[in-house]
Amino acid sequence: MRIEELGEFGLIDRLVQRLGRPDESVVVGIGDDAAVVQYEAERQVVMTTDMLVEGVHFRRDTIDDRSLGYKSLAVSISDIAAMGGRPKHAVLSLALPIDLEVERLEELYSGVQEICSQYGTAVVGGDVVKTPGPFVISVTAVGEVETGRALLRSGARPGDLVYLTGTVGGSAAGLDLIESGNSRSLAPEAVADLLRFHQRPAPQVEAGRILVATGGCTSANDVSDGVASELHEIAKMSGVRLVIEADAIPLHASVRHYAAASGKDPLQWALFGGEDYRLIGTLDPSRLAEVEASFAKAGLPLVVIGRAEAGQGVVLLRDGARHELRPRGFNHFGS
Amino acid sequence: MRIEELGEFGLIDRLVQRLGRPDESVVVGIGDDAAVVQYEAERQVVMTTDMLVEGVHFRRDTIDDRSLGYKSLAVSISDIAAMGGRPKHAVLSLALPIDLEVERLEELYSGVQEICSQYGTAVVGGDVVKTPGPFVISVTAVGEVETGRALLRSGARPGDLVYLTGTVGGSAAGLDLIESGNSRSLAPEAVADLLRFHQRPAPQVEAGRILVATGGCTSANDVSDGVASELHEIAKMSGVRLVIEADAIPLHASVRHYAAASGKDPLQWALFGGEDYRLIGTLDPSRLAEVEASFAKAGLPLVVIGRAEAGQGVVLLRDGARHELRPRGFNHFGS
Repeated sequence: MRIEELGEFGLIDRLVQRLGRPDESVVVGIGDDAAVVQYEAERQVVMTTDMLVEGVHFRRDTIDDRSLGYKSLAVSISDIAAMGGRPKHAVLSLALPIDLEVERLEELYSGVQEICSQYGTAVVGGDVVKTPGPFVISVTAVGEVETGRALLRSGARPGDLVYLTGTVGGSAAGLDLIESGNSRSLAPEAVADLLRFHQRPAPQVEAGRILVATGGCTSANDVSDGVASELHEIAKMSGVRLVIEADAIPLHASVRHYAAASGKDPLQWALFGGEDYRLIGTLDPSRLAEVEASFAKAGLPLVVIGRAEAGQGVVLLRDGARHELRPRGFNHFGS
Repeated sequence: MRIEELGEFGLIDRLVQRLGRPDESVVVGIGDDAAVVQYEAERQVVMTTDMLVEGVHFRRDTIDDRSLGYKSLAVSISDIAAMGGRPKHAVLSLALPIDLEVERLEELYSGVQEICSQYGTAVVGGDVVKTPGPFVISVTAVGEVETGRALLRSGARPGDLVYLTGTVGGSAAGLDLIESGNSRSLAPEAVADLLRFHQRPAPQVEAGRILVATGGCTSANDVSDGVASELHEIAKMSGVRLVIEADAIPLHASVRHYAAASGKDPLQWALFGGEDYRLIGTLDPSRLAEVEASFAKAGLPLVVIGRAEAGQGVVLLRDGARHELRPRGFNHFGS
């Protein structure tokens, strides 16, 4: 069905049907001039926004519509996670090419609802407009964090340990697999892993909440632009040098297998690929045991991959040598 | 200067310089994964989002870049006003054609800052991405309102009075003037009025705050799509019929002059033009004197233009006859 057949309000009605019933934090949801929501006492409000453009951030041949809806929300939920916050509400705007089929949008909203229900987040508003250009998705996620406890990029100190809350490089490996169109005789489960890493990344909200609850986390970022780029942001904002060991960076077995089969270096995906959405940052070493115990109790991974020292920049230790690591992350408009 | 010469981070640095220093409600502003803000105790959070596409919502030949920045924020601030809220924070995302000049964006941000400083609002985050398509602006505004006091569309009851917080039709008149390219020998001040109505609408935050403080306001909308469309929304959500008098609808003298000079009916602009961003809604008649006194004390206009009765739809009384009024507001994708 074409969008014009429904009109603006008919389309909105149809898409809203894909969304679930919000919890009691939503006082006024979709359907008035603005949404009204209620946060708990002693909380600060966390907000973040991301914009995705077809042909720049996603392509129809590398992601299905439902996964696109899922991932569009994941990107912003991950930013809330990187502050240690609990994502609660989101607004979602779409600029729609006039020939986009309504069924594609319904699938997209099903993916949005899938991740929202997993993370306890409600879509409380949005805007749909037409465009003569490519499909554009804009998401703003809003949540809450205990007053004064948000995880920043700026608190790393020399001596702190560099942590990562899961494997990295999987999203870039998945994209490589999709683009190559060759699964290199991998087991079906490995192919599924790589597709999931790229198309349905898992924001680390629970990990962020543990880091807030235990204390001792001196900095945090989510891995949106690659480990190297995220560490550079922390190093710069904190005024430290971060030194990481190549062998300590956790890589999923399916990523290792695919790298071996395709003759690629998985470390490149981990350092420069991005879109893994794990948390990376630094910890007070005196609190490590407590933090590790909390992650273990929750059944979540936490890996120490390096250390902060006096200085600046990011250093990779590999095969006994120190390499100055450049950000080389995804940089829009970069030359 | 072209955007590629600066790169993503250089561009952001440059644009952020145009923004003012936020107040103490901003705990973490631009520069981390997400912003962290603090609202007052006993407040609920109000949020709204709008997306504007070049060629659909604005054109370079009808609005300058600085006014475009101003108006982009005005649209969302107005939605907060229509809930009776105080706009506090905004995030702003831009999809940029690669050949857009940096100087245009700096002007746009100057306009953003101009309205933000007028309304006590801070831009606390955003995203800039490139697009092969038209320029797209996405704004999310967030604010606060006293718990349980937000102004909704759904509370109008038979007997309530229909109010309007200022003149309408000015934005459509201004657009007509710009598009016609003929100022019809109007006084320069009248031309300036019409340009301002179209390019720099004034969100009615203070009016909304008075309506919340006095009580007695049973419904509210902002006039984004025209008086007829807004009244239809309220009538539908409240389950009442709204009857308004044509002669009671306030029109600015410059709008009347321009209409007379150009042979147009200014009522058409008022009813179906939109983008005036006044508040419209209903009041408990027993509270009218108190509300009028509060508006008068603040030096703000409040005009009664009709009444709610049992039934449905919207009726216009003109020249002694009742006319069923259709919404005919701006409807994206409408056929």
